[in-house]
Amino acid sequence: MTKTTVVPIKLESSHRTTLQEQIYSSIRCSILEGLIGADHRLPSTRALAAELGVSRTTVMGALEHLQAEGYLVTRRGSGTYIAKQLPDRAAPLPLQHARGGRHPLLSERGRALAEARAPDRRRPVSPRAFRLGTPALDLFPLRLWSRIARQCIRSATAKHLDYSALSGLMPLRVAIAEQLRSRGTKCEPSQVTVVAGSQRGLDLVFHLLLDPGDSAWVEEPGYPGARCALLAAGAHALPMSVDADGMRLSEEPDADNVRLAYVTPSHQFPLGVTMSLERRRELLQWARRSRTWIVEDDYDCEFRYQTQPRPCLHALDPDGRVIYVGSFSKNLFPALRLGFLIVPHDLATGFATARRASDMHPPVLEQLVLAEFISRGHYQRHLRRMQAAYSERLDALQTAIQRSGVPLKLRPVHSGLHAVADVEDGIDAERVAQEAEARDLEVVPLSHYYYGTRAPENALLLGFGAIRPAAIRLGVSHLAQALDAARRN
Amino acid sequence: MTKTTVVPIKLESSHRTTLQEQIYSSIRCSILEGLIGADHRLPSTRALAAELGVSRTTVMGALEHLQAEGYLVTRRGSGTYIAKQLPDRAAPLPLQHARGGRHPLLSERGRALAEARAPDRRRPVSPRAFRLGTPALDLFPLRLWSRIARQCIRSATAKHLDYSALSGLMPLRVAIAEQLRSRGTKCEPSQVTVVAGSQRGLDLVFHLLLDPGDSAWVEEPGYPGARCALLAAGAHALPMSVDADGMRLSEEPDADNVRLAYVTPSHQFPLGVTMSLERRRELLQWARRSRTWIVEDDYDCEFRYQTQPRPCLHALDPDGRVIYVGSFSKNLFPALRLGFLIVPHDLATGFATARRASDMHPPVLEQLVLAEFISRGHYQRHLRRMQAAYSERLDALQTAIQRSGVPLKLRPVHSGLHAVADVEDGIDAERVAQEAEARDLEVVPLSHYYYGTRAPENALLLGFGAIRPAAIRLGVSHLAQALDAARRN
Repeated sequence: MTKTTVVPIKLESSHRTTLQEQIYSSIRCSILEGLIGADHRLPSTRALAAELGVSRTTVMGALEHLQAEGYLVTRRGSGTYIAKQLPDRAAPLPLQHARGGRHPLLSERGRALAEARAPDRRRPVSPRAFRLGTPALDLFPLRLWSRIARQCIRSATAKHLDYSALSGLMPLRVAIAEQLRSRGTKCEPSQVTVVAGSQRGLDLVFHLLLDPGDSAWVEEPGYPGARCALLAAGAHALPMSVDADGMRLSEEPDADNVRLAYVTPSHQFPLGVTMSLERRRELLQWARRSRTWIVEDDYDCEFRYQTQPRPCLHALDPDGRVIYVGSFSKNLFPALRLGFLIVPHDLATGFATARRASDMHPPVLEQLVLAEFISRGHYQRHLRRMQAAYSERLDALQTAIQRSGVPLKLRPVHSGLHAVADVEDGIDAERVAQEAEARDLEVVPLSHYYYGTRAPENALLLGFGAIRPAAIRLGVSHLAQALDAARRN
Repeated sequence: MTKTTVVPIKLESSHRTTLQEQIYSSIRCSILEGLIGADHRLPSTRALAAELGVSRTTVMGALEHLQAEGYLVTRRGSGTYIAKQLPDRAAPLPLQHARGGRHPLLSERGRALAEARAPDRRRPVSPRAFRLGTPALDLFPLRLWSRIARQCIRSATAKHLDYSALSGLMPLRVAIAEQLRSRGTKCEPSQVTVVAGSQRGLDLVFHLLLDPGDSAWVEEPGYPGARCALLAAGAHALPMSVDADGMRLSEEPDADNVRLAYVTPSHQFPLGVTMSLERRRELLQWARRSRTWIVEDDYDCEFRYQTQPRPCLHALDPDGRVIYVGSFSKNLFPALRLGFLIVPHDLATGFATARRASDMHPPVLEQLVLAEFISRGHYQRHLRRMQAAYSERLDALQTAIQRSGVPLKLRPVHSGLHAVADVEDGIDAERVAQEAEARDLEVVPLSHYYYGTRAPENALLLGFGAIRPAAIRLGVSHLAQALDAARRN
């Protein structure tokens, strides 16, 4: 179904630019920011002109410009639509063209960060099959959250408006420490550092534990966000391959200036395997022996299917070498931007103090609401409900793929919110992803998460957490078409 | 007046530590985090024991331990109080003691950040005279804010729970761009990047525009947060002295690898001077000639006393060399943790993309509420009310100092929320600050903001924004005692 879109445009007569340029720039910006998504219809030029109080010629000039650049497409007798494939998303970033002279526009590091291969989190539309990394937003108890927020604001005083504790509010830290027991581990509230999302946490950890030029082990394939944060810290990422038991330890584990290992032991991203107990022990021994750190990213460990929970690495660590990174993006919702670190006692004060350089602390109101949500038991209840919903969604995906007879083979899914699907020989997974995009699906080839080496697998990643069962079934039928088209090409 | 404090303590029998250790650690943590402030009285050991369901001996053991370490003091017949001078605040950070071996606990950078001289933002109590950097929280329209928040949450949908635009929500960017006209400058919404507070903004700017080893000009004396962020980016801060016309440009302005200048032209922190038009032009010419960047921090520019507003540096820049840093911490409240950058067109995409490495975007709800608050006109109204309140508070400070005959001379205050007071010869400003601390005042010597050089002035900084006129008058009388004590010593 096509919706006609309301475009937020503000015009100023005193502006440095013409009205036509302002209209052009407002619409372009709205498209690029995802405020109006692919395939939405614009109001008619007559309606736009009337609404903005400008001539129709002015509006048409702006739209023609946008059409020429590929942002809009016209369908005869039906109107003007936002293009499915936007020019800027494919085009190289403008900043790749340095201005010349002795200083390029961004620093080397800045350019590397801006160009780093990482999933684009600008989401123009609601979750489509098979979006990765988004939980079941359709099932989030927004009213309940709203009620608690109202109560928190009502009881807030001037004190809650000032700068606050750098490691986060104590009631929230107490709630998180308590909650962590479900992961089989323990910590004191003083070891909990609340951060503005786990990406913020990784950035902080790498800046505090690594100097420029230091190295860190990362999983290959692995999470792009960790690589970006290492890049920002000026550190080198040394890729370590992953097999069915998790990350394989290097033959030369004591290689020079390796100061930490970044791992996702509970549910390796993106392969989904769980690190074996033996590998965990080896890793901890390596860290103890070489006095290095382990950063354990437990990003979506709460949801398990027909498997027993395994305690996190942090629980096995008697030496305080593990820094645990937790996120509320998968367990609650990403727009909250809250996560946490569990740091060894020795580091807690340093971590707090150093935050003056980067961000101080997350917003106080968000912290208050989350602390209440957890301590009143809503968090545990929500996780239980989501466990049931994700089991149902995974089942829908497995059944639909089996019944459709598509040339895909799903690997077993033990936990998390996505599956790995191997594509039949002779069909290129990257090509399938392109064909899927043209059919309004979001499908990422596994190869996108290999950095140092070439992907040995021809596989796709299929997120199922954010998608309702009916949409999963429909998505599989569209995916079947995409596979078919990719085979023919 | 002394209040008896409720201490949040949770005990677990299954815990690795004894009950006594848990009580000790909860109270110590609450004190260090500022949850219970100096001079608050603890409940009696009998009451605590009853409440926690443990023996009185257990409670007494924990309290004795805390007393021995200097966290608590006992006053005969009156009870147990939190100590005014806490041991950990003065003691060196634990991480200064590296564990030895080939890797110290934190990286070099991490240690430098954790030990950097910067104002401690952990505020144990409500604003006291003469707190710096906090606005009039007592006058913030919390109910109005709460009403708007309620409306925003009520109309939120699943879409608002997902990851969002990396540069911030477009309605907020539009509102900020419009609002910026009050600073005499203009920008497109596409140039606005919403960040989680201006410190986050500085961290981002320095990482994207500087490589490790690059240099940046900073003002001397100057804002410690900018120095911390430069440290985090691996850059060198080159101090440039400040006179009555603002930062003095170097004799060797083209010194090697200087890639940017960080300045506070509207209201120099901490001296309070405004950069002259001539200096502004020179600075812009330098940036154009050497293809370097200017980072303009306009942190508390909205409030002016008997002076005409001067447009910000950004308004004078035809070349797009100025990155403007704005904050809502002074104009609204610090716990909101929202600020923004205005970046040149060429940099906008790069800045957005690079945020995947550090923090993605600020929380969506906070952005929605702020956008509404601005676009409905509440922001402008609030600023007008605050202008009147700050004029009154400044007047109270000036009058009280004049009438009290203290050996202080206030420099003229043209804008902002703090004053510089020169201390009479023969009395040491640092000593006055210590005596003031003992009298429950917060007074910072100007010398704390000198880094590369020795402070030529014997002066104090007095914040007046957060303090009611009556408390200002009382504060001045206590300050008179502190000055007196410092003279005698």
